[in-house]
Amino acid sequence: MSLTSHRHERMYGDFRLFAGTASPDLAGRVADYLGQTLCGRDVVVFPNDNLFVKLHGSVRGQDCYVIQSTHAPVHRNLMEMLIMLQTLRLDSAARITAVIPYLCYARSDKKDQPRVPITARLVADMIEVAGADRYITLDLHAGQIQGFFSIPGDVLSASYILLDYLLTLKPKMVNPVIVTADLGFAKKGRNYAASLDIPMAFIEKRRTGNDAKAEALTLIGDVRERDVIIVDDEVDTGGSICQAVDLVKDYGARDVFVTFIHPVLSQNAMKRLAQLPVAQFITTDSIPISAEQRAMVEGRLKILSVSSLLGEVIRRANEGRSVGEMFNE
Amino acid sequence: MSLTSHRHERMYGDFRLFAGTASPDLAGRVADYLGQTLCGRDVVVFPNDNLFVKLHGSVRGQDCYVIQSTHAPVHRNLMEMLIMLQTLRLDSAARITAVIPYLCYARSDKKDQPRVPITARLVADMIEVAGADRYITLDLHAGQIQGFFSIPGDVLSASYILLDYLLTLKPKMVNPVIVTADLGFAKKGRNYAASLDIPMAFIEKRRTGNDAKAEALTLIGDVRERDVIIVDDEVDTGGSICQAVDLVKDYGARDVFVTFIHPVLSQNAMKRLAQLPVAQFITTDSIPISAEQRAMVEGRLKILSVSSLLGEVIRRANEGRSVGEMFNE
Amino acid sequence: MSLTSHRHERMYGDFRLFAGTASPDLAGRVADYLGQTLCGRDVVVFPNDNLFVKLHGSVRGQDCYVIQSTHAPVHRNLMEMLIMLQTLRLDSAARITAVIPYLCYARSDKKDQPRVPITARLVADMIEVAGADRYITLDLHAGQIQGFFSIPGDVLSASYILLDYLLTLKPKMVNPVIVTADLGFAKKGRNYAASLDIPMAFIEKRRTGNDAKAEALTLIGDVRERDVIIVDDEVDTGGSICQAVDLVKDYGARDVFVTFIHPVLSQNAMKRLAQLPVAQFITTDSIPISAEQRAMVEGRLKILSVSSLLGEVIRRANEGRSVGEMFNE
Amino acid sequence: MSLTSHRHERMYGDFRLFAGTASPDLAGRVADYLGQTLCGRDVVVFPNDNLFVKLHGSVRGQDCYVIQSTHAPVHRNLMEMLIMLQTLRLDSAARITAVIPYLCYARSDKKDQPRVPITARLVADMIEVAGADRYITLDLHAGQIQGFFSIPGDVLSASYILLDYLLTLKPKMVNPVIVTADLGFAKKGRNYAASLDIPMAFIEKRRTGNDAKAEALTLIGDVRERDVIIVDDEVDTGGSICQAVDLVKDYGARDVFVTFIHPVLSQNAMKRLAQLPVAQFITTDSIPISAEQRAMVEGRLKILSVSSLLGEVIRRANEGRSVGEMFNE
Amino acid sequence: MSLTSHRHERMYGDFRLFAGTASPDLAGRVADYLGQTLCGRDVVVFPNDNLFVKLHGSVRGQDCYVIQSTHAPVHRNLMEMLIMLQTLRLDSAARITAVIPYLCYARSDKKDQPRVPITARLVADMIEVAGADRYITLDLHAGQIQGFFSIPGDVLSASYILLDYLLTLKPKMVNPVIVTADLGFAKKGRNYAASLDIPMAFIEKRRTGNDAKAEALTLIGDVRERDVIIVDDEVDTGGSICQAVDLVKDYGARDVFVTFIHPVLSQNAMKRLAQLPVAQFITTDSIPISAEQRAMVEGRLKILSVSSLLGEVIRRANEGRSVGEMFNE
Amino acid sequence: MSLTSHRHERMYGDFRLFAGTASPDLAGRVADYLGQTLCGRDVVVFPNDNLFVKLHGSVRGQDCYVIQSTHAPVHRNLMEMLIMLQTLRLDSAARITAVIPYLCYARSDKKDQPRVPITARLVADMIEVAGADRYITLDLHAGQIQGFFSIPGDVLSASYILLDYLLTLKPKMVNPVIVTADLGFAKKGRNYAASLDIPMAFIEKRRTGNDAKAEALTLIGDVRERDVIIVDDEVDTGGSICQAVDLVKDYGARDVFVTFIHPVLSQNAMKRLAQLPVAQFITTDSIPISAEQRAMVEGRLKILSVSSLLGEVIRRANEGRSVGEMFNE
Repeated sequence: MSLTSHRHERMYGDFRLFAGTASPDLAGRVADYLGQTLCGRDVVVFPNDNLFVKLHGSVRGQDCYVIQSTHAPVHRNLMEMLIMLQTLRLDSAARITAVIPYLCYARSDKKDQPRVPITARLVADMIEVAGADRYITLDLHAGQIQGFFSIPGDVLSASYILLDYLLTLKPKMVNPVIVTADLGFAKKGRNYAASLDIPMAFIEKRRTGNDAKAEALTLIGDVRERDVIIVDDEVDTGGSICQAVDLVKDYGARDVFVTFIHPVLSQNAMKRLAQLPVAQFITTDSIPISAEQRAMVEGRLKILSVSSLLGEVIRRANEGRSVGEMFNE
Repeated sequence: MSLTSHRHERMYGDFRLFAGTASPDLAGRVADYLGQTLCGRDVVVFPNDNLFVKLHGSVRGQDCYVIQSTHAPVHRNLMEMLIMLQTLRLDSAARITAVIPYLCYARSDKKDQPRVPITARLVADMIEVAGADRYITLDLHAGQIQGFFSIPGDVLSASYILLDYLLTLKPKMVNPVIVTADLGFAKKGRNYAASLDIPMAFIEKRRTGNDAKAEALTLIGDVRERDVIIVDDEVDTGGSICQAVDLVKDYGARDVFVTFIHPVLSQNAMKRLAQLPVAQFITTDSIPISAEQRAMVEGRLKILSVSSLLGEVIRRANEGRSVGEMFNE
Repeated sequence: MSLTSHRHERMYGDFRLFAGTASPDLAGRVADYLGQTLCGRDVVVFPNDNLFVKLHGSVRGQDCYVIQSTHAPVHRNLMEMLIMLQTLRLDSAARITAVIPYLCYARSDKKDQPRVPITARLVADMIEVAGADRYITLDLHAGQIQGFFSIPGDVLSASYILLDYLLTLKPKMVNPVIVTADLGFAKKGRNYAASLDIPMAFIEKRRTGNDAKAEALTLIGDVRERDVIIVDDEVDTGGSICQAVDLVKDYGARDVFVTFIHPVLSQNAMKRLAQLPVAQFITTDSIPISAEQRAMVEGRLKILSVSSLLGEVIRRANEGRSVGEMFNE
Repeated sequence: MSLTSHRHERMYGDFRLFAGTASPDLAGRVADYLGQTLCGRDVVVFPNDNLFVKLHGSVRGQDCYVIQSTHAPVHRNLMEMLIMLQTLRLDSAARITAVIPYLCYARSDKKDQPRVPITARLVADMIEVAGADRYITLDLHAGQIQGFFSIPGDVLSASYILLDYLLTLKPKMVNPVIVTADLGFAKKGRNYAASLDIPMAFIEKRRTGNDAKAEALTLIGDVRERDVIIVDDEVDTGGSICQAVDLVKDYGARDVFVTFIHPVLSQNAMKRLAQLPVAQFITTDSIPISAEQRAMVEGRLKILSVSSLLGEVIRRANEGRSVGEMFNE
Repeated sequence: MSLTSHRHERMYGDFRLFAGTASPDLAGRVADYLGQTLCGRDVVVFPNDNLFVKLHGSVRGQDCYVIQSTHAPVHRNLMEMLIMLQTLRLDSAARITAVIPYLCYARSDKKDQPRVPITARLVADMIEVAGADRYITLDLHAGQIQGFFSIPGDVLSASYILLDYLLTLKPKMVNPVIVTADLGFAKKGRNYAASLDIPMAFIEKRRTGNDAKAEALTLIGDVRERDVIIVDDEVDTGGSICQAVDLVKDYGARDVFVTFIHPVLSQNAMKRLAQLPVAQFITTDSIPISAEQRAMVEGRLKILSVSSLLGEVIRRANEGRSVGEMFNE
Repeated sequence: MSLTSHRHERMYGDFRLFAGTASPDLAGRVADYLGQTLCGRDVVVFPNDNLFVKLHGSVRGQDCYVIQSTHAPVHRNLMEMLIMLQTLRLDSAARITAVIPYLCYARSDKKDQPRVPITARLVADMIEVAGADRYITLDLHAGQIQGFFSIPGDVLSASYILLDYLLTLKPKMVNPVIVTADLGFAKKGRNYAASLDIPMAFIEKRRTGNDAKAEALTLIGDVRERDVIIVDDEVDTGGSICQAVDLVKDYGARDVFVTFIHPVLSQNAMKRLAQLPVAQFITTDSIPISAEQRAMVEGRLKILSVSSLLGEVIRRANEGRSVGEMFNE
């Protein structure tokens, strides 16, 4: 084992961790996991809104990782990452990996109507043209987005982390049931239900009448007198979650738990969540949640860190060891 | 209108239709729709299994369309199309569009386990490297596959054709309900249900025990005393459909209709379908169904042709007119 | 002539003008010049800060132009343009031209120290990967940025417009002299001086002592009792201009005129300019100047429009006619 | 020497050998030569004729070799190799080499008539787009096919192996002479003749009359009372060889030996060869010859293995040592 | 027919002919054939040996052809062509075709020994990267070089022109026979022989002893009392031709005719040819032959022009009409 | 430090130095600095002016550097380098760096008039397509040319070497002043002046009247009774330098020193320089100066070698160490 490790370590030399300004805390936790410090770099915003990056030390021949989430301000965070990638490439890094806990524009992943973009593909193209050799990310809205990249990557799921936590809650729950708020998440919802060995139900949404905004919600399946775990991949404005909580309550649900990977939490989403009759919100630190936001749901928010997951994958990528075996395939 | 049409027609000159050997009947129907004849080409299989293509006439500066489905024998059909694309390119065609009613490998669209391919991306890359400038296809397994292509394309849905037909059946049905056999198709199933203005139900499948093969099926939603319309995007061996029909019957369904876009019908699928208590199978000619297969379900098989759909899109692509407006967006 | 024009017009069909949200007024003026209306498109900002674009009509086979300046908010404006370019490409436009009156990041055009980016090249790569076939822009900070693009483009200069205006002022000036505030602009300053047939002088700036901020300015050449025209390509925070005006006044200059192509005017630049003893500020509308900003220098601000220049180049690009001959080479 | 070897071994780490399903025996012999075992992988054919590959272990950072000949079924074998290459790439292999003992479509290497493909270039493009960094192959129909690849490769010749064997036969032969059955092989035939230090003769083939099938064969040079060695690069249906043997016999040849690199042996080629008055057939295992085929020419078939040649090149490629010096340049 | 022609003419607009400085006479003849004049351009050689090109008029949206042979000085001629191609591209030409009567480096087309280049592929890459969309050339040393290009092209043969002339000579010849001086040309030599319906013979060359320079030549086939037509694709220093003429004379040939496409005629080749007992030298103007050279073989040199061939192909390429049908396939 | 060095050395293995035929002396000095010998290679010019390269030993997996300046004969030197790069690539070198002390065509870096090339971009593209992974060069005419390359590179400045020497001269000078002969060099001239802590002046050049050749020169700034150091990046024909020396002398300068990086010295430049009243010419060996040329200015020519600079950068690039820290940033 140590021999193997030694052989692989030679493959790409030591690694260098860089963090953009979007997720400094998570990057710090990843560095801690790896027993490294983040490499120095200046990120400057000029008065004309242009960004400027300067590395403190040379990365020639190094195996470099740039940790940057691409939540709001999306375009600034994205551009900052791209500039860092190009800077590393121009400084002759041996290999460059973009580590993107939350990848922006993942919902713009197909033309489901004429004359619209597939912005997720554009983002993938931009990451490649900037100089990334590989990418690491978490829970893409659609797994197919992997195919938008020409470069190899590791698309990991934090659902294992959420499931481990839910398994600790399960013994205390009453007849728990998984509910998905979006039919596009039905299959992944099934995986949660199967892993927890509990039943599931679905919320079906339809537009009604001529008004594009009017929607009719139907619950398909049974939640009466059950604890409900609503699962989704991200929470944006919280609108769907609010509807879902109301609906399951209407149908007679007991306690409601809301579980999601990416806390996008746009606008006043947290304020809306805080007003819901929800026992617990369970999410990750793929996107930073401000202290102010956290305070709104005090005592009801569980944030599980993805830092060990990202850190371990970075280590294995650098050493040329299997990532798949982390998950006991 | 005629002026506009005239102006655009000049954009790419006349068009030329070519057909591979995989779907000659459909190609013929497309040509009929367009009032054209298929251009002459030789396709030869040499004794060493190598294919050879020769065009009968020059395509310099022409706007060319190659119609070829990529069902089994998948690799021969695919390679034949690629060779035709390259031949057109080397003969200096002005623009080349691959028209692929059924795109192979669409289910290999993501790495859902470590160390596996994303073959749909490979296929997209091969189509591009062979020389296609554009592509036209029908009902991809996942809409995101559009993002695997760097070239623009028209991904159409034959579901409108199926829906038009189902609407004619609906008045005769008793409390019809849409059922999806696969949770990955739940969202598209909802679209069918909404268009028909009827409720829906889901079949949930889970592995049980240690045996990878053992599955437990649950019906979520209500089918009792209802006519059931099972919808899916394709039928391969027919295994899922058989399970689904049995299950809805167990739950007390009345008549069962099975609707799917692509009749892949591998192995003895048609024989299995024929034995099911199904009122009608409704599908398209995106893949040819042999006379022998058709005979097995005589009287219960409705094949709706996609030739007008493909033909109209080809015409509009050539004339530089909107495809989207075909669907009254 | 009309025959020639007619022949070329057929080359790319009619053209379609699109405008991003960054410079609607200029885009409107360009459209007016061309006797066209801007094509309809929706630009939506989702709550999660993601942008979404939808074209109102098909652009298949059309010759499309996207007018978008990339001033602050730089990254949002840039991304909006990229998304529009991709949307046009995916909708099978025949040719797509990015019309960028002011190109962002043009000052990040070389590595003048180790471990820094060349962001202008990254921007060029992004424009290409998004789908532009050509680009049109004005007065790049360095002409060499043309070489960052693999696609052809028209890099125009608005200096002719400024010069025409300065020529009308010249008869009223007393012994006018051109002064450049930045030695990197010395050669272009010479071109102004030569066109106006007047002498020139330079301001040389050096860092002094250990303090990176301390600078010593020297005026090389003669401005005493002369009207001074300070020329530059853009004004950002206005710092250099303030120094320059003070310096020439110290050296005994009479009236001072400040001329620049791109009114970047970051932060409170306009407020600083307003306090200077400057007779007139002469610039263009390549970047919009708000009414509030304009009011600060009321009566002393001359904005010359680049809309005819851009419009005429678009017309000629579409018709396949010479752009060079616009300038009486 | 060992130091050098040690230094180079570090360059690409250990190597990993993979075999497709096309040439398992040859791959096994290569692995034996290298003292390695073939890496585990599943190759599955789904009912819908789609292939699926899964690697048993991670290849991150490894130097990987995929051994796969591309004889009939050509397209399945080719696609299987391409999918394996992509799978290795997506699993972040450090370097991937396609080892293709027999490369399909090598005879489609130029447009010798209008409107035909250059399929060998298409195949090269497909290998590159799938992810190969390098390739190794044997005796291309035309050496120029090397130039179809953008990636570097080692194109080896098994002729040295055949020549070594022919040299052992020569002392027993009577006035041996080399005869080429195809003028396109004349130059390579000369190399055989020169290496064996014996004379040569040619068979010239011409079409006669209006019938495309009618051919007139002429022997140019002298074979009377001589043992004849007919040389070619591959034997497909055996038609040319049958003609050649008949012709040299007509011209008074003594014993006839038939030598060729690639035993394509399409259709009933082996049955036809078996009926010829040929003393010995000498070929290689670049393509597997079934036991049944071997039995048809029992006692007259000499198969020389290319496994050591391929194995040694793989070793040297991995260690960064010269391949050229294997041949005592 | 005229309608067809009219439709195609619209495809690419009028064409524009440009000539480099390498083959002005041939370019002029091509222009004459097409009833056009060559477009004006400056080609300047700066004192520092850098070339500079400036077009006299705009080529926006035009279909442009650059005629330039790449004989000695090879690198200057090649670079001049590349610069012209890039200039046309940057000026937004609609389509650019490199017309290269003689393509340099065609003999460096494979690695026939370790550690050597494939310069013909490099040249193809350079032509593409400079901006050519298509190429037209004559009689490549190996037809496979077509596969080195990713862009389509027309590779024509002037052999038809030579054959037409040889057919006029044939009635006066005595038992004519084709002889190839190089075994690599054997197959093409057979085509000459078959077209003239006469027999053929070969010259085989082998190195002898340890001295790399010593060669033994053997004539295989019969030339005694026959008029001999020696055919080759090009004559460089004339060394092989001198040997060949001597050899056939030794074997009792009557009159000797020497036929070749490309008159490379390096060093004092023409002087050597002039001293040979050759009845006539038959070649083309793919490379200019100076008046001085022509004078050396006065009365024995027949130069057949390729200008009509090139001109007709340019016309058909522009109009989108078949080139293949020029040759009555 | 030694540990670090050891780790990095493993990254790319040993390095291999190759030299083209353009600058053998400089290449030898670089090799001496590095304690290496240049690797053997044959460079042959065939009679037909084609170049041929063959490496004496294998470079598989090696880190290779090709040293070649691209002065006149520019195209031969450039092509020789490109062929060497391709040869290394095809021989599977691990990494290839083009070391180009003087990069040709750097003055063709933008379209400053319509319908002209950007040849420097073409050259960059050619270097990349030939196979370079990186490049190293000195003092580009415009730093922006870095952005023409997609590959990373080290663009170094020999100005530090020149400045070190000027600092040794300064104590003996009388009121020295920097003068730039070209306004495009004004900013770099300022850097010289600031480093030497002396003032500066400019020469401004304008066309006069109708005659394109007639120029009026003005000196802006003060040189009277001062020693003048004229600085420029290269001297081509020497015309500008002659004008500049005359002008400063006219304005009363004392001793004149002429300093430039690249001694292009076209035509009879050296003879013209020799006749000038110049105390010393200070330049580098980036381009070889013949013994004959050196003799013309005997005693007045100081050539400073760039060999240590290039050698040290090569060493650091190979070892994966910082280049920036060489300059005490």
